[in-house]
Amino acid sequence: MRFVAYRDRGVDGLAVAAPDGGFLGCPSDDPAYPGPLSALIAEGPGALRSAGAGLLRQGRAVDLDAVTVLPPLPAPGKIICVGLNYVDHSLESGFQPPAFPTIFTRFASTLIGHGAAILRPVLSEQLDYEGEMVAVIGKGGRHITKESALDHVIGYSVFNEASVRDYQSKGPQWTLGKNFDSTGAFGPVFVTADELPPGGKGLRLQTRLNGQVVQTASTDDMIFDVATIIAFVTEALTLSPGDIIVSGTPAGVGMARKPQLFMKPGDVCEVELERVGLLRNPIEAEEPIAGRQAA
Amino acid sequence: MRFVAYRDRGVDGLAVAAPDGGFLGCPSDDPAYPGPLSALIAEGPGALRSAGAGLLRQGRAVDLDAVTVLPPLPAPGKIICVGLNYVDHSLESGFQPPAFPTIFTRFASTLIGHGAAILRPVLSEQLDYEGEMVAVIGKGGRHITKESALDHVIGYSVFNEASVRDYQSKGPQWTLGKNFDSTGAFGPVFVTADELPPGGKGLRLQTRLNGQVVQTASTDDMIFDVATIIAFVTEALTLSPGDIIVSGTPAGVGMARKPQLFMKPGDVCEVELERVGLLRNPIEAEEPIAGRQAA
Repeated sequence: MRFVAYRDRGVDGLAVAAPDGGFLGCPSDDPAYPGPLSALIAEGPGALRSAGAGLLRQGRAVDLDAVTVLPPLPAPGKIICVGLNYVDHSLESGFQPPAFPTIFTRFASTLIGHGAAILRPVLSEQLDYEGEMVAVIGKGGRHITKESALDHVIGYSVFNEASVRDYQSKGPQWTLGKNFDSTGAFGPVFVTADELPPGGKGLRLQTRLNGQVVQTASTDDMIFDVATIIAFVTEALTLSPGDIIVSGTPAGVGMARKPQLFMKPGDVCEVELERVGLLRNPIEAEEPIAGRQAA
Repeated sequence: MRFVAYRDRGVDGLAVAAPDGGFLGCPSDDPAYPGPLSALIAEGPGALRSAGAGLLRQGRAVDLDAVTVLPPLPAPGKIICVGLNYVDHSLESGFQPPAFPTIFTRFASTLIGHGAAILRPVLSEQLDYEGEMVAVIGKGGRHITKESALDHVIGYSVFNEASVRDYQSKGPQWTLGKNFDSTGAFGPVFVTADELPPGGKGLRLQTRLNGQVVQTASTDDMIFDVATIIAFVTEALTLSPGDIIVSGTPAGVGMARKPQLFMKPGDVCEVELERVGLLRNPIEAEEPIAGRQAA
């Protein structure tokens, strides 16, 4: 099933894709509301199936172009990002392909939904796109084996992991450049794992800036697949339901181009993942800084 | 005022230090309970003062050795860690002192309280201590100037940022080695900013492993002080009440010693920050992995 979280006239709602391609939804102030995706995911695939069936039966048509689309999960407990996970991107970034998954994190405060503006910061012009596949954890665990790892993935989504390159390289850790406000575009669709090949493998991932294709790859090109990433991170920590893994971006980022190509106000960036969905975001300028001189 | 969050017979409570050095507390199932520190911090210094005054008036004696001490904030929205923030530690770690604060993050899932066990992982013997001062954000903001930054700090605490060194260096990003379960010891005391020098400056910070002093410094030795860190990170992101800044560790970590000195089950590690408090944690072995062969 394919779910979208939305807000209409100030009220959150949840919608499911109908066989005709439209969406049927229910607002949270309706007794039929099945709950937010975060709660359904924590309950498991049965709760998602039941919620989807209920929405297909009782939901009302929702025009996704007429409502505010929200991130499928607005506040994952952990946003685990994987860097350098495609050989060509690793090389274009000046790194050898790594021997282990390269892990960094985002705060939930960076997240925005489909259609919301990615903000180009006042203090940097180096705002870059990164199209990625997201794996959503359904069943938590520690020391998960690679063989059983996909049992812990309840679904998939799409991410534009917009990165502020000069801040990313102000020191040895990338964190700050990956955590600017309103730079983590996520969604619109959360697709349950049963609709896709195991591990989300073999899906075409494409990023377009103002219609021009800037990244294109297959998720098969990932150095470390979703199962390997889960096994590796749970050597260290316990994954919980609703945690997300943002699995890395292929070659073609703007920083590595000659000339460099950064996103600027007025641009539109799209990330499309085959059989999952299309994430589109305009770029807007951050508000000028009140009462502060730029450095 | 000096606050401690605790749990007694399954019920959370909040205590405040009395003039005689003891603690007076109130459980959350008592109508006089002022709320958790996270809520009081979000309300501001007035709410903290009022809660403290109420506990001094009505609280019952709490023996901190007889209850479970909790982290002052169990789930900060952001745990912002600063690396390489003391010259000698930067050099012992093989880095030049950085030109900008080096930022990385922890998940709240790593946090434990005073007295709880720091777990030595099954998969690594390189569990290292890092004593640090914590600054707690009271008033949020973006693009905070260095000059006004300390107005946003509502108090201070202590952290043992236990790090699994081999995982920290499995790639260019330190994240995984900094996010093992039960490695972020935090507390026990949250001290309001008005009790300390501005920015928590000039305080002696000392780490002891089994009573042996292994790190000792003054918070004056930080390369980037708390105000500078706040100004820098808010160039990128909005800080919110209850976010914490774990401000870096001085020289003396076990990894850089010859011979190396790592924490092992049976050890006790203490971090003491002058005028703030003493954080003590035993080291225990993580449970063996069920149904999984170690790599």
